[in-house]
Amino acid sequence: MTEEYAPQPIGRLYGLGIGPGDPELLTLKAHRILTAVPVIAYPTMENGKVLARAIVAGFIRPHQIEIPMPLPFSVERSSQPYYDRAAEKIAHYLNAGQDVAVLCEGDPMLYGSFMYLFQRLARQFPTEVVPGISSTLASAAMLGAPITFRNDVLSILPATLDAANLRDRLVGVDAAIIIKLGRHFAKVRGVLEQLGLLNRALYIERATQPNQRILPITEVDPTKVPYWSLILIPSQTQPQ
Amino acid sequence: MTEEYAPQPIGRLYGLGIGPGDPELLTLKAHRILTAVPVIAYPTMENGKVLARAIVAGFIRPHQIEIPMPLPFSVERSSQPYYDRAAEKIAHYLNAGQDVAVLCEGDPMLYGSFMYLFQRLARQFPTEVVPGISSTLASAAMLGAPITFRNDVLSILPATLDAANLRDRLVGVDAAIIIKLGRHFAKVRGVLEQLGLLNRALYIERATQPNQRILPITEVDPTKVPYWSLILIPSQTQPQ
Repeated sequence: MTEEYAPQPIGRLYGLGIGPGDPELLTLKAHRILTAVPVIAYPTMENGKVLARAIVAGFIRPHQIEIPMPLPFSVERSSQPYYDRAAEKIAHYLNAGQDVAVLCEGDPMLYGSFMYLFQRLARQFPTEVVPGISSTLASAAMLGAPITFRNDVLSILPATLDAANLRDRLVGVDAAIIIKLGRHFAKVRGVLEQLGLLNRALYIERATQPNQRILPITEVDPTKVPYWSLILIPSQTQPQ
Repeated sequence: MTEEYAPQPIGRLYGLGIGPGDPELLTLKAHRILTAVPVIAYPTMENGKVLARAIVAGFIRPHQIEIPMPLPFSVERSSQPYYDRAAEKIAHYLNAGQDVAVLCEGDPMLYGSFMYLFQRLARQFPTEVVPGISSTLASAAMLGAPITFRNDVLSILPATLDAANLRDRLVGVDAAIIIKLGRHFAKVRGVLEQLGLLNRALYIERATQPNQRILPITEVDPTKVPYWSLILIPSQTQPQ
């Protein structure tokens, strides 16, 4: 009789979009996977930019293993070695046959931190991405502002672009959403003023989170704008 | 003793984003509201462009009242009289104190038909918009293609734009999603070829629906492209 070496089954990697803040904005699918997997991973940062675990805190069960993934505080420092280490930890569980769900605020494929893990792990392990509610769309819902009609083009722009670049991209836009405002608010406001877009611009911070705030853009204190804030410039198209 | 005339409470209007096709991509919130309201309204069209009711068919209960909202088949005809009639029907139930949920494929505020009802009813009745998973983000998840990193700008463009306009908007894009392809596919493909973007372009139809198809863009038959299809041009940014 020969010994049999059954190949150990490997685990499945999930990139779970968990939406912008309100736990009820998880999809049924993300909720099902989140509450079923043995291992949950999520980014952590000291500057409050990361809130993934807080969003789903009420769904996590005591027996689930948690992998916090530290990310650098400073944007000057490369985050890539951090993702290397996180991928290594996650691979350890996947190789042991355990499924791992990585939490992502908003949607995993739109400016998501999960994409860096996807690039490192998706070739080796069966991987599934579950789309999530983006803060851009949630903000329009909270503001009660339709974004685009019919033939409108929508531009989504990070506020981190320099003023000249922002101006070039915003000239004549049908509709735009400027994300990640934070300390870039004053610059963005200046550009919108130059382009005559300020009267169309709607401001919201922490959409769907318990401390969501909507206020007229002219009343925003530029020194107190959080990272999780955005400006929506809705379409002016009239229905036909 | 004087008679008392208690004001009749009016119903609440919900615009429910129900996602791109997979019923599990409803949010917990949309699912809760959908299964609780007495009245459900949804657009219907003869050309197969509308699938809202089919997505949630498994969640609708026999005692719920359904309001189909016919929309014109031809884009040449104005849809506004149709929305007038739909708004009137919905207002009837709201005035009778019944909550009404209007189903919207994808997200209600992004090219959504709900926006026309929102414009007609939101000033009169308490209204809540529940964001949904957009087919744009769901497609990126299905394609396994990160859309945007860091400082990338994303453009979402309807394929209905004419070729010159599409070309102007696509020159030098970081990342783009071209939606509503249908009979516009050949034109879009031509523009992408001219701009040298064809080798970056990913094609998907009916993302997350049972008959989803992903195929190389060079193998797409332009005469068989459904309305529910899109082209994703992902960012080329390398992680830093």
